[in-house]
Amino acid sequence: MKKFSRRHFLQSASAAVGVSAVGAALPSFTTACKNKNTVYDGKKLNIALVGLGRYAGYLAEGLQEAQYCRLAGIVTGTPSKAVDWKKRYNIPDANVYNYQNFDGIKNNKDIDVVYIVLPNSMHKEFAIRTARAGKHVIVEKPMAITAADCEEMIDACKKAGVQMAIGYRLHYEPYNMEMKRLGQEKVFGQVRLVEASLGYKTGDPNEWRLKKALAGGGPLMNVGIYCVQASRYITGEEPLSVTAQFGPITDANLFKEVEASVTWQADFPSGALANCTSTYNCGIDRLYASAENGSFELSPAISYGPFRGKTSKGELHFPETNQQAVQCDEIAKVLLAGKQLPSHITGEEGLKDIKVMQAIYEAACTGKKVSIA
Amino acid sequence: MKKFSRRHFLQSASAAVGVSAVGAALPSFTTACKNKNTVYDGKKLNIALVGLGRYAGYLAEGLQEAQYCRLAGIVTGTPSKAVDWKKRYNIPDANVYNYQNFDGIKNNKDIDVVYIVLPNSMHKEFAIRTARAGKHVIVEKPMAITAADCEEMIDACKKAGVQMAIGYRLHYEPYNMEMKRLGQEKVFGQVRLVEASLGYKTGDPNEWRLKKALAGGGPLMNVGIYCVQASRYITGEEPLSVTAQFGPITDANLFKEVEASVTWQADFPSGALANCTSTYNCGIDRLYASAENGSFELSPAISYGPFRGKTSKGELHFPETNQQAVQCDEIAKVLLAGKQLPSHITGEEGLKDIKVMQAIYEAACTGKKVSIA
Repeated sequence: MKKFSRRHFLQSASAAVGVSAVGAALPSFTTACKNKNTVYDGKKLNIALVGLGRYAGYLAEGLQEAQYCRLAGIVTGTPSKAVDWKKRYNIPDANVYNYQNFDGIKNNKDIDVVYIVLPNSMHKEFAIRTARAGKHVIVEKPMAITAADCEEMIDACKKAGVQMAIGYRLHYEPYNMEMKRLGQEKVFGQVRLVEASLGYKTGDPNEWRLKKALAGGGPLMNVGIYCVQASRYITGEEPLSVTAQFGPITDANLFKEVEASVTWQADFPSGALANCTSTYNCGIDRLYASAENGSFELSPAISYGPFRGKTSKGELHFPETNQQAVQCDEIAKVLLAGKQLPSHITGEEGLKDIKVMQAIYEAACTGKKVSIA
Repeated sequence: MKKFSRRHFLQSASAAVGVSAVGAALPSFTTACKNKNTVYDGKKLNIALVGLGRYAGYLAEGLQEAQYCRLAGIVTGTPSKAVDWKKRYNIPDANVYNYQNFDGIKNNKDIDVVYIVLPNSMHKEFAIRTARAGKHVIVEKPMAITAADCEEMIDACKKAGVQMAIGYRLHYEPYNMEMKRLGQEKVFGQVRLVEASLGYKTGDPNEWRLKKALAGGGPLMNVGIYCVQASRYITGEEPLSVTAQFGPITDANLFKEVEASVTWQADFPSGALANCTSTYNCGIDRLYASAENGSFELSPAISYGPFRGKTSKGELHFPETNQQAVQCDEIAKVLLAGKQLPSHITGEEGLKDIKVMQAIYEAACTGKKVSIA
């Protein structure tokens, strides 16, 4: 089983041979996987990436395989990265911005969407500036570091008449969507227990993900959010309350500002219970759901694959996808068609996760059960 | 994956084809698995079972395959069971007792060991009566329902000069002992996280396991104890403190007296963290350990098998065993040799688990982190 680590992510991205989402007439992602020989030759949505860190690299690679969108511009605070990316991805000077001149993008007809891949605390500012520039927004998860920030972002997009998607790539990933279907359609009866765990071993004390002002928190903000999401899409419910606990600080040099690990429990209206773990101490990557009449699980579950899944009736087999390509293509198809983005990837959805994560931090800090408003 | 349910247990026991522990000169259980054609023909230890419920049935079946011990007597409060068992297992009248005349067993030279399989709260009384009768004691897990009871049992055995073993069958099960070795020998480096979960769906409101006075608690006492044990034998450490949470009461008719589920977190001196779940709501049966440089896991992990295991380097493969036969044989070999039982199955070990479980209940009731004395 591959570990969910930054190194692995890099390897996966560069070696990506996944099936990209292609096909005529805006097919669904499932259909897309089957029709890989059909090539779409209509208009492509032009995407600019803001923040050229690791994950932007995976998105750029994914966009090379996308059919309905392309990497058209970049926004970076590091001139040397601008030089490198321009050359590697053939980006014209007119589509290269820095953080100061970014607002000029509103006059650039060659950019349709701005995809924000900055440190978490910068999402709000750039989402609002993007909206004011009249461009659609895609913002990586977590949407922001507070619920108040999320609300400002949603308001800004509404006022500007643009759409905002959160980078919930797993909503376009077949194994995870099967977990959602099995849970929500009660294929094995009412779900009683969800265990969701995601972690990897971190090691660089200078990484922004370990700085509270930039990340908003530790593994919960980065990887735990997937567990929050999964417990919500498997049950199809919103948690009523949470309890939570910080794990031991295992390295005082790394974990000066954020938690090393956090565990939490969420109870849902149906009586379903989720017990989850997120950590920067070691590798774990797993979803398990047990229902009245059977169970279903993935491991690896949440990383960039390949995934493995089974139910109490047998193994699950779905095509492997290039998650970044499929996600961007599916969002692009909706925007190209002038339709509304599906509710499970909108800012309102991102806000729900942030509210749960804020409650988890409050519960871990106070030791009390915290209701979710 | 087979569910950990009472029905499954019955099926497994009756269909048991496991490799029993046989071999010359008291071999280890690992050797025993390989030498199944060698038959021991020396003295067999004579075991009497007290309490003829479901698990006694599995033990009786296991004892049919054992080489170093045999089912020699029974103690039951139900005359019809006595008739049935005498016939089925060819037990002489002289070796059949009820709860009133049980103490007469001290004069019975044909009984060496009394194996107590009664409801949890009755373990103390019968362990003490067994010790006073001068017989060795095996008592099913949990050892008792309070730490004070455990201490009385240990004292009684010391005074009587008899030995006491707790029915920790997994200490003779190869997959679980590999998890212990991988953790304690730090094969993948220091263990950082243990996730241990065990549960099955219960349904009979009259079952003694749902009565607090008999069971001492709910799934924690019955199946959660395996998760407590596993977190201890994988880390090789004693937890410093625990937090715990009761899950939702999903069926008011079933869960009038005991919890439906309980989750808990334990922190260990090395900084390792355990996050565990035990439930009567649904099936789950899994051990996962993640260390600095890799992970190792079993699922199914704790039930009666067959188990499946893997590490981050590949699959684990060990012979399937008849857990009850191997456990009884290994205990018998030690007693036949006049040696001391290994520390990991003694009353002192049972007491440690009870102390952790008492702390878990206190933590779940108070919402506070509870230190373990």
